[in-house]
Amino acid sequence: MLIIMDRGATDAQIDAVIHRIRDAGLSEHVSRGVERTIIGAIGDERKLEADMFELLPGVEQAIHIVKQYKIVAREWHRDDTVIDIGGVKLGGSSVQVIGGPCSVETQEQMQLAARYTHEAGCKLMRGGAFKPRTSPYTFQGLGVKGLEYFRNAAQQYKLPIVTELMDVRMLDTFMEWDVDVIQIGTRNMQNFDLLKEVGKVNKPVILKRGMSATISEWLMSAEYIAAGGNHNIIFCERGIRTFETAYRNVLDVTAIPVLKRETHLPVIVDPSHAGGKSWMVPALARAAVAAGADGLLVEMHPNPCEAWCDADQALTPQELKDLNQTLAAIAGALGRTLNG
Amino acid sequence: MLIIMDRGATDAQIDAVIHRIRDAGLSEHVSRGVERTIIGAIGDERKLEADMFELLPGVEQAIHIVKQYKIVAREWHRDDTVIDIGGVKLGGSSVQVIGGPCSVETQEQMQLAARYTHEAGCKLMRGGAFKPRTSPYTFQGLGVKGLEYFRNAAQQYKLPIVTELMDVRMLDTFMEWDVDVIQIGTRNMQNFDLLKEVGKVNKPVILKRGMSATISEWLMSAEYIAAGGNHNIIFCERGIRTFETAYRNVLDVTAIPVLKRETHLPVIVDPSHAGGKSWMVPALARAAVAAGADGLLVEMHPNPCEAWCDADQALTPQELKDLNQTLAAIAGALGRTLNG
Amino acid sequence: MLIIMDRGATDAQIDAVIHRIRDAGLSEHVSRGVERTIIGAIGDERKLEADMFELLPGVEQAIHIVKQYKIVAREWHRDDTVIDIGGVKLGGSSVQVIGGPCSVETQEQMQLAARYTHEAGCKLMRGGAFKPRTSPYTFQGLGVKGLEYFRNAAQQYKLPIVTELMDVRMLDTFMEWDVDVIQIGTRNMQNFDLLKEVGKVNKPVILKRGMSATISEWLMSAEYIAAGGNHNIIFCERGIRTFETAYRNVLDVTAIPVLKRETHLPVIVDPSHAGGKSWMVPALARAAVAAGADGLLVEMHPNPCEAWCDADQALTPQELKDLNQTLAAIAGALGRTLNG
Amino acid sequence: MLIIMDRGATDAQIDAVIHRIRDAGLSEHVSRGVERTIIGAIGDERKLEADMFELLPGVEQAIHIVKQYKIVAREWHRDDTVIDIGGVKLGGSSVQVIGGPCSVETQEQMQLAARYTHEAGCKLMRGGAFKPRTSPYTFQGLGVKGLEYFRNAAQQYKLPIVTELMDVRMLDTFMEWDVDVIQIGTRNMQNFDLLKEVGKVNKPVILKRGMSATISEWLMSAEYIAAGGNHNIIFCERGIRTFETAYRNVLDVTAIPVLKRETHLPVIVDPSHAGGKSWMVPALARAAVAAGADGLLVEMHPNPCEAWCDADQALTPQELKDLNQTLAAIAGALGRTLNG
Repeated sequence: MLIIMDRGATDAQIDAVIHRIRDAGLSEHVSRGVERTIIGAIGDERKLEADMFELLPGVEQAIHIVKQYKIVAREWHRDDTVIDIGGVKLGGSSVQVIGGPCSVETQEQMQLAARYTHEAGCKLMRGGAFKPRTSPYTFQGLGVKGLEYFRNAAQQYKLPIVTELMDVRMLDTFMEWDVDVIQIGTRNMQNFDLLKEVGKVNKPVILKRGMSATISEWLMSAEYIAAGGNHNIIFCERGIRTFETAYRNVLDVTAIPVLKRETHLPVIVDPSHAGGKSWMVPALARAAVAAGADGLLVEMHPNPCEAWCDADQALTPQELKDLNQTLAAIAGALGRTLNG
Repeated sequence: MLIIMDRGATDAQIDAVIHRIRDAGLSEHVSRGVERTIIGAIGDERKLEADMFELLPGVEQAIHIVKQYKIVAREWHRDDTVIDIGGVKLGGSSVQVIGGPCSVETQEQMQLAARYTHEAGCKLMRGGAFKPRTSPYTFQGLGVKGLEYFRNAAQQYKLPIVTELMDVRMLDTFMEWDVDVIQIGTRNMQNFDLLKEVGKVNKPVILKRGMSATISEWLMSAEYIAAGGNHNIIFCERGIRTFETAYRNVLDVTAIPVLKRETHLPVIVDPSHAGGKSWMVPALARAAVAAGADGLLVEMHPNPCEAWCDADQALTPQELKDLNQTLAAIAGALGRTLNG
Repeated sequence: MLIIMDRGATDAQIDAVIHRIRDAGLSEHVSRGVERTIIGAIGDERKLEADMFELLPGVEQAIHIVKQYKIVAREWHRDDTVIDIGGVKLGGSSVQVIGGPCSVETQEQMQLAARYTHEAGCKLMRGGAFKPRTSPYTFQGLGVKGLEYFRNAAQQYKLPIVTELMDVRMLDTFMEWDVDVIQIGTRNMQNFDLLKEVGKVNKPVILKRGMSATISEWLMSAEYIAAGGNHNIIFCERGIRTFETAYRNVLDVTAIPVLKRETHLPVIVDPSHAGGKSWMVPALARAAVAAGADGLLVEMHPNPCEAWCDADQALTPQELKDLNQTLAAIAGALGRTLNG
Repeated sequence: MLIIMDRGATDAQIDAVIHRIRDAGLSEHVSRGVERTIIGAIGDERKLEADMFELLPGVEQAIHIVKQYKIVAREWHRDDTVIDIGGVKLGGSSVQVIGGPCSVETQEQMQLAARYTHEAGCKLMRGGAFKPRTSPYTFQGLGVKGLEYFRNAAQQYKLPIVTELMDVRMLDTFMEWDVDVIQIGTRNMQNFDLLKEVGKVNKPVILKRGMSATISEWLMSAEYIAAGGNHNIIFCERGIRTFETAYRNVLDVTAIPVLKRETHLPVIVDPSHAGGKSWMVPALARAAVAAGADGLLVEMHPNPCEAWCDADQALTPQELKDLNQTLAAIAGALGRTLNG
């Protein structure tokens, strides 16, 4: 950590900073420049916080030099992590398209959805039994019944299942129904108690980015999971909140190369929630794969017009099939294989 | 709800929209204009979602006319709600400054903090036993021990206590320690399971705004609590996330008059977290009261330089006392009383 | 335009709205619902503004139904516009990569840059003679001398040139040096006097998006140019400002399909400015083409380490060549040709 | 400037950085830590840009230590600057409310507006002759005729006038009509050629903040004006663009104490444009004064319902009078005088 002093900082103020650095078990390095004195804190700076210094009189700014995350950082783990989900590989040279409906509605709908997901060439399936909804008056998901319908339907096509966990008290139920991948949603990216709990189980976790979370906060949330022992984490970019009102969110495609550089863990994208309209999905899905994403979460509904929620963003089975074809060509242009 | 059709919408497309409106138990009103046909859905539109129509072919846009929230809306409850917290009134003509440290650290610190809070004229006290922290490697709060220290210290000065609940599994413990006001933090504003649970208890709830939550989402989160039966909700603006990097967050002062118009519930402001630096707190606190806030959450630490977290934003006891004096004058200019 | 009245609006208030609609030469259509009365203004609503009604007592909201832009709207011009730039086609089935340095520095640098741009397969060249810089103390561009160097260098390879116009008083000079495409920069997207002037000349204009401009404002700025008679407008997405600090701006890839739907004019992307680092450029460039962009503005410098500004975002000649190869494959997957 | 090297940076890479620092005429100070080597550039770092180093291999980050602005910085000019506008003092202990209509419409309207502005106790008057409008099809202001009406009306009450300059070619006309304060609007905050020109004249300049400009960019824009010789600059906060859609912009009240700390120049606030609705204006105006603003730009219209633009945000004469009374009390609570 570097502590930059005010232009007129006194020797006593500089001493106070040094004192505090030593208190924390680190040592200091003082550099007196023409306009500013700068003090470096030498040692494990993860113990320090900028606030510890910025409050002291005479301090202008304290800057972290070393990143706060470690287990998830590529700096400490050079090779790409490939996550095994019931035999399907996510990360590395293949790109997985995870298809399925927004919500579990009925056993029949899930049966059809599983068939179409399989026929479109996808190896993994998504679907929501518990739905985070802005309004208490709208459909909140089928709950445990939904897990049952989903498990039954996916079994037939040997599709590992991905579904969202919102309430820490439901984790045991998720384990009973043998959910293959636990999804942590946007609104829970900083639900730290939930992160700690999924950090203790032996299931891959998809960690969606908070609607206005920085890359750094997102990595720290993953570090919460990793610190518990569970290193099978998949980042999922799903659009960020901006000033633009012409679409729901802005898919942050830049996050893909940046995350791939910062972490060894896989990065996938949810083009369906990002844009919010099904006609935007193909363009966003193509962009994500072209930018280097390791996978996609794509909403497909056997009959989008009948869907109970977010219908607006679901593809038809045929559209998903067509999209997969184009994506395969783009993946090929980058030396990767789709749904391999 | 209004459904606006594309310029070239066909009769069949218009019929499909009408069909769907009737399916939902509402009736339609069709208005054919020069450039567009517009269809109104007449009846209780809280059952409808824009997505139900925007997916249909020929539909350009669907617009909610009626607000989605009801219990918290001023439209249905004209008078200001005044919340009674152990005899202290929040809302109405008085403005309450809730003082206290960011975190509970030791019994002595809390004893001192309670004394200074009381001496500064505050009638309510704040302090965190469970701390939401970006990094898993930094101080996470004292936990239950912290509740004990806080309860003990506040008792002496008969100060009702405000503290944050993060984990739904801790709610019983909060009731045991008789926490007077439960605070729901920024990161949990859309932790819907937590909202549902605090909706069932008989304790006032401070609902902090999510870092990038819209006013409408915030009101809907309050509606989650209210729908459970607990109508004692206090909104707390604490700064929003923007592009600006010169300060932590931007205190959204406009939210104050807007909320006061939309809801009958009290609105308070946290100037300490918004700016992130103690020297900004007085200016922001004054602005909040001048804009019509019903109260403030102000961090004060017996010895800010020694604080274990967010020290940077805490006032000294003397600074809090001085601030209260200026705030009393501003409240007076608006015909209100401070800490009354 | 639809005017939505408050729940308790009186007949007199409704009459006042009707009065104002008629004053503006339109007619009204009143629809009295259960909770709200809604009044439609029938006729050319481009003359109306929401403010004209929202101020009147009893009015809750006024909503534009018809878009404010017309000449640039696809609604009124279904086919893609293809712009001819000295024989090179921009728009339609081909995707053009416009290469070249950020700034014109010397005649030699431009000569080399032109050669490398040509060798990489690009048909159009970019370069800045006038540079918009945040600080008055940094390099502001070579000015007119820069136009000369650029013109000379590009001539050799018959590359039409693209360069930024900042000051309306320089337009004549741009015409003298026969600049092929005039670029309007981010900071000038709403410099309306400048837009009006380039609307009068017979040169294609690249209109960069303002750092926080909505799609709708951007289209309106293009409408300013178009209203003057110049319909050869190219939109250029260059990243938007958000809360994220890990990269300069967020490339808004969603804007591509949205604009392609809203306007018949070509849409290109500047991946160099968006990310701000050269290592991000290939991923962003690929994403843009995959999402359907009609072209790219890519910074390439004969020797990036020596560049006088924004060096950090320039590719080497070899990197540009390699990038073009991958882009050609992606364009192919979408049935388009690169630099055709 | 500090240059932070990658963890694995080689000696050759470190040498390259040193080389570049020396080339720029500065000297280096190398500090080798456990995880990182950090190099300080010693000398006038305003000549350096982060990009000059961040492109070099082995460099992780380059950080400015010294602020880029100088003339406007409080660091170099401790006392508050008080600007004299025809005998009226802006800055220091008094707070000036600048009243008047959004647009100049007719001679009569301006006559009335001047009278009401004077009667409300304001010492300065505002009004727009040239209007920046999103759409080319809406009212663009009366132009030069508007300056004439404004001048005539204000003269009667000896009110110095404030009006917006958009086009650099109009500056001479502004001088002819003896505009007392030149306003640079939001959309032109980074119209650098315009800033350079107003930097050469002897008239106070109100510099509005760009809709998404950082404090630092805003200070740099002021530095452009100051560098030309004109040091009579007044900052005007007018709301920033965020994700919130319930109001036009978010008034950034935090900017007030931050600017007052960073610069010696006066800071005023425009509560009318920020919120966009007249009913929000009093709350925002009070917040601004309470936060320490040196003045306000408040829209008042003799008859808001008849106003040609932005009527929605104008106060009536009586509302302005009432507002001034409350503001006087708040200013008093801070030891300042209103319209003194």
